[in-house]
Amino acid sequence: MAVRIDLNISLDGFATTTDQTPEKPFGEDWPRLVAAYAATRTFRERVFKDTSGKGTTGIDDRYASDYFANIGAEIMGAGMFGLHNFPDDPDWRGWWGEEPPFRVPVFVLTHKPRPSTEMAGGTVFHFINTTPADALRQAVAVADGKDVRIGGGASVARDFLKAGLVDRLHVAITPILLGRGIRLWDDLRGLEAGYMVKTETAESGIVHIIFER
Amino acid sequence: MAVRIDLNISLDGFATTTDQTPEKPFGEDWPRLVAAYAATRTFRERVFKDTSGKGTTGIDDRYASDYFANIGAEIMGAGMFGLHNFPDDPDWRGWWGEEPPFRVPVFVLTHKPRPSTEMAGGTVFHFINTTPADALRQAVAVADGKDVRIGGGASVARDFLKAGLVDRLHVAITPILLGRGIRLWDDLRGLEAGYMVKTETAESGIVHIIFER
Repeated sequence: MAVRIDLNISLDGFATTTDQTPEKPFGEDWPRLVAAYAATRTFRERVFKDTSGKGTTGIDDRYASDYFANIGAEIMGAGMFGLHNFPDDPDWRGWWGEEPPFRVPVFVLTHKPRPSTEMAGGTVFHFINTTPADALRQAVAVADGKDVRIGGGASVARDFLKAGLVDRLHVAITPILLGRGIRLWDDLRGLEAGYMVKTETAESGIVHIIFER
Repeated sequence: MAVRIDLNISLDGFATTTDQTPEKPFGEDWPRLVAAYAATRTFRERVFKDTSGKGTTGIDDRYASDYFANIGAEIMGAGMFGLHNFPDDPDWRGWWGEEPPFRVPVFVLTHKPRPSTEMAGGTVFHFINTTPADALRQAVAVADGKDVRIGGGASVARDFLKAGLVDRLHVAITPILLGRGIRLWDDLRGLEAGYMVKTETAESGIVHIIFER
């Protein structure tokens, strides 16, 4: 069992974009940040339900495939789930449609818990108001010995990193400068000291960086 | 003739460290930031005057060698030259000893100009109080058709990037988190739009990113 984070960030360190509007809930920055990932065969199949077999199959696809492998539970912030965009909609069920790509229990950290929601394909959303360490205990308990992923956004990922709870951090750096959003790296001086660090460049120009215990 | 910038930055984007003391003028962060570079054969020979032929010869050394190739003049900020550390010493001649590695005219941007200083090996320091565009005109005029490098620090590099004066930006990203210093990327949203961007990973783990017109 390992606790993992996988995030896409810009060259200037922004993991979560903040240019959303009600009409464009992901803003204009997010699609550019994840473009190379969204082009992979794995992502197209798993997230977009595209079974044509199209999509890139290089280094980015290897990481995309790894993203979904051996995950037994996921933890994410209220913002990533969409509760900040739709605070007054008790029926909001996330961005991912009726059959979300997670297929495992997902714990959404929120100050306003609501009943659990069971989706098609094995995903169940639980809404909990607790600390990172306690959320992790709950996730580990249902992960069946598999890994637990901290899905994001950036501030939630940072909370778990600062608490020393993360075994493997993988960031995919897209070489664009966003200049706005939420920074992943703030207040993490010296994080590398507890990890082995590996770097790798994909055909797309994406830089993959792995911090591993 | 091209205008070039080559900088070392941390994963969290800090190009200039700010933890200097009078006893440790480079602080503790700077040596860690440039360690892989300082280990190259080219850097050891050119900067440390080590003619033993020792040092790494991989991808980092290729960039280190490129750093010194075809440069006809350099522009740097007062901070990089050391005027902020030794403001009251009229005889301060920079960090690089009596035979600095530049071997070309170097224009130091400062609000307090002083007489030019000729060093051994071809380096002449000129101290000028002017705009980026005008400094560049002066440097081009003496560069003999070769490239002009904007040496740093981070804020000077950013000024030239924001003014659209730079043809080639090379950053070597060391995968450590400093958490303090001066950020290179602030306020440069969309910079990539005017450039071709290439990424490459060295044996040392350093990530090299090139923005080229």
